[in-house]
Amino acid sequence: MIGMLTGRVAALGADELVLDVSGVGYLVGAGARTLSRLEPDQDIVLHIETHVREDAFKLYGFLDDIDRAWFVHLQNIQGVGAKAAFAILDTVPVSEIANAAALGDKSTFARAKGVGPKLATRIATELKDKAPPTGRSFSIGLPVHSDDGTTGGAPVAPAGGDSLAREDAVSALVNLGYNESQARQAVAKILRDADSEAPLGDVIRLSLKELAA
Amino acid sequence: MIGMLTGRVAALGADELVLDVSGVGYLVGAGARTLSRLEPDQDIVLHIETHVREDAFKLYGFLDDIDRAWFVHLQNIQGVGAKAAFAILDTVPVSEIANAAALGDKSTFARAKGVGPKLATRIATELKDKAPPTGRSFSIGLPVHSDDGTTGGAPVAPAGGDSLAREDAVSALVNLGYNESQARQAVAKILRDADSEAPLGDVIRLSLKELAA
Amino acid sequence: MIGMLTGRVAALGADELVLDVSGVGYLVGAGARTLSRLEPDQDIVLHIETHVREDAFKLYGFLDDIDRAWFVHLQNIQGVGAKAAFAILDTVPVSEIANAAALGDKSTFARAKGVGPKLATRIATELKDKAPPTGRSFSIGLPVHSDDGTTGGAPVAPAGGDSLAREDAVSALVNLGYNESQARQAVAKILRDADSEAPLGDVIRLSLKELAA
Amino acid sequence: MIGMLTGRVAALGADELVLDVSGVGYLVGAGARTLSRLEPDQDIVLHIETHVREDAFKLYGFLDDIDRAWFVHLQNIQGVGAKAAFAILDTVPVSEIANAAALGDKSTFARAKGVGPKLATRIATELKDKAPPTGRSFSIGLPVHSDDGTTGGAPVAPAGGDSLAREDAVSALVNLGYNESQARQAVAKILRDADSEAPLGDVIRLSLKELAA
Repeated sequence: MIGMLTGRVAALGADELVLDVSGVGYLVGAGARTLSRLEPDQDIVLHIETHVREDAFKLYGFLDDIDRAWFVHLQNIQGVGAKAAFAILDTVPVSEIANAAALGDKSTFARAKGVGPKLATRIATELKDKAPPTGRSFSIGLPVHSDDGTTGGAPVAPAGGDSLAREDAVSALVNLGYNESQARQAVAKILRDADSEAPLGDVIRLSLKELAA
Repeated sequence: MIGMLTGRVAALGADELVLDVSGVGYLVGAGARTLSRLEPDQDIVLHIETHVREDAFKLYGFLDDIDRAWFVHLQNIQGVGAKAAFAILDTVPVSEIANAAALGDKSTFARAKGVGPKLATRIATELKDKAPPTGRSFSIGLPVHSDDGTTGGAPVAPAGGDSLAREDAVSALVNLGYNESQARQAVAKILRDADSEAPLGDVIRLSLKELAA
Repeated sequence: MIGMLTGRVAALGADELVLDVSGVGYLVGAGARTLSRLEPDQDIVLHIETHVREDAFKLYGFLDDIDRAWFVHLQNIQGVGAKAAFAILDTVPVSEIANAAALGDKSTFARAKGVGPKLATRIATELKDKAPPTGRSFSIGLPVHSDDGTTGGAPVAPAGGDSLAREDAVSALVNLGYNESQARQAVAKILRDADSEAPLGDVIRLSLKELAA
Repeated sequence: MIGMLTGRVAALGADELVLDVSGVGYLVGAGARTLSRLEPDQDIVLHIETHVREDAFKLYGFLDDIDRAWFVHLQNIQGVGAKAAFAILDTVPVSEIANAAALGDKSTFARAKGVGPKLATRIATELKDKAPPTGRSFSIGLPVHSDDGTTGGAPVAPAGGDSLAREDAVSALVNLGYNESQARQAVAKILRDADSEAPLGDVIRLSLKELAA
């Protein structure tokens, strides 16, 4: 029901905050990484995931829409709930999650608190052949969040700038005849090793070299 | 619970948008035809249908109230959910749906993605003898939506201008002694063939000729 | 969750209205008597009863809090749902409902559409020995609604002015030793026959005469 | 979903109030102690606990976040619902609840209306070895509420000033090797007997004397 909230930080708790929007203080669950970037009375935009259950109506908030998208994507895996998804997002930057997913690298997921070896293996296996999530504003590059956590500032690259380059490279390789899974692995390796801001052309060229090896 | 939302397009996704209303970004499901008429930061009025389930609290949005009314009306038919209803509304203009319903013309419904022949037949059969939906503001002709998608502009014909002419013609024929089903079919044929803005008198005269044939 | 809404009439339907409050159009079920007193774009205050069910989140609106209180009170009776409660409130003024309840007069309830003799009898019997509802602002006489349907205007007698006089008279008689049920019947008879704005003293004096007869 | 509400008192009932926030009147359950400190049209901040059930969506409001925290904490005990929790909070100031909890003193809880000896004993036993609740803004000392019930005024000690001193003293004693339960009891005795605003140093010194006795 709610997808975004724009308001003022009214209270900060251990795993939640209260965001005041014109007098209504919404109780929003958040990860440690998000909470650590917030200050009382700060004006922010949060991307919200609404969870409705028979006895709960919960809001989870993220400064970047791609984090929200991964929060949802991770919980499609059996055994991963909100807590484990937050733990992973708090420990592993989103770009690394995409690489680890493409490479089936369970050790990355095992770094997260409360994620044991068995669950880490299942996460890596299930994510491996799936396209990473795109989030809500991916298609039209809406200014989602500027790095200083405020709502102002020049519009930044669309949610998940890294995701855009990744998808363009993968679809280029698929068009050249490679199957999607191989293409994803090659691109993930390149993005992990090379500077993640590498131009698209280089990413494709290096991925082709990787596939030819 | 929510019937209308007036706000600013904050984000556009593949099958949903986020509409910001004084800081609260409502997540609203919408059809491709609606989304294609929207732009980021545009101020719009959406007619909302609220779906409450044990684990979901969903909002569906429409630029015209009559679309929302047909979205609800179509889902009274077994096997038609939100997705199929959107597919029909995205493929067939509302006036054509009313004609196809009156004429029991299943081929119109079969044009919609995901609507097979069996479901199309059931839709045509079940809609045939039912009066088309009227929507919320039908009774008093409130300005519902102007064509350029903004909230301003001169008040336009009430929701479903076409529906008004249709209903007036049908009730005139019923008053002349014809049964409702026959009257609806005749009027539907005239509205389909003739210019749908034809004056009421002509619609009644041509329908009578159709019934006398 | 919601107890009152202050906003602008955005749309009027057959048995509901959309009330716009800062851009959110709340869908509010209402009775014919309430809807007949409203006009498009009118600013009003509605007293709201929220019904939450597994698959519904409904708001019902009333121009006077005492109507809302009776709407809830009537539905405590088995077989009386929102529809029947609205039918009774649309047919019988609240003060008459209180009299009919005290006097166990089923014919008053049978006047309402959809309320058959059996249900009317059960309503009259079950209400007979119960104190009438007081509503939310009864205790401190808050200005609830002025007669012209707008939010402004001088503060009027607290919700259910009639209910106040009734309760004061009944408790006076009970203090004089009469049992509550007898006291309620006597006061109801007086309020029904005499001018319902009769001063408290007269109501008590006439009720004592009634009880002594 | 909702954690705080900032608005105007629109209506006061026996066990609830309506708080108007930009036109939406939220129905908020409250205890007698809270309601007695409110007046019609007063601007206030309420700390809200949201209860979602299959057929209910209830808001409970508190002028101090620590009261809300105890309201939740008490209901973790089997047999204590919202009504009993309010009864305890209406009868026993929060600082005394913390002392009674630490000392396992059931007589304090038995003072509350509707809390019999059996339930009082269970409350005292179950609370005894648990750390008192901290509330949402405990960690960063946000100005939660000033004593005159309005939202303005100089920022006061963070929610539960008393709780802060208690926790600091207990953790100091635990660091000196005492087990937590003993430490809590000693500190509770000191806070109950001595002036509850006693400086932290005195509280620790007197508690050590108590433990050495």
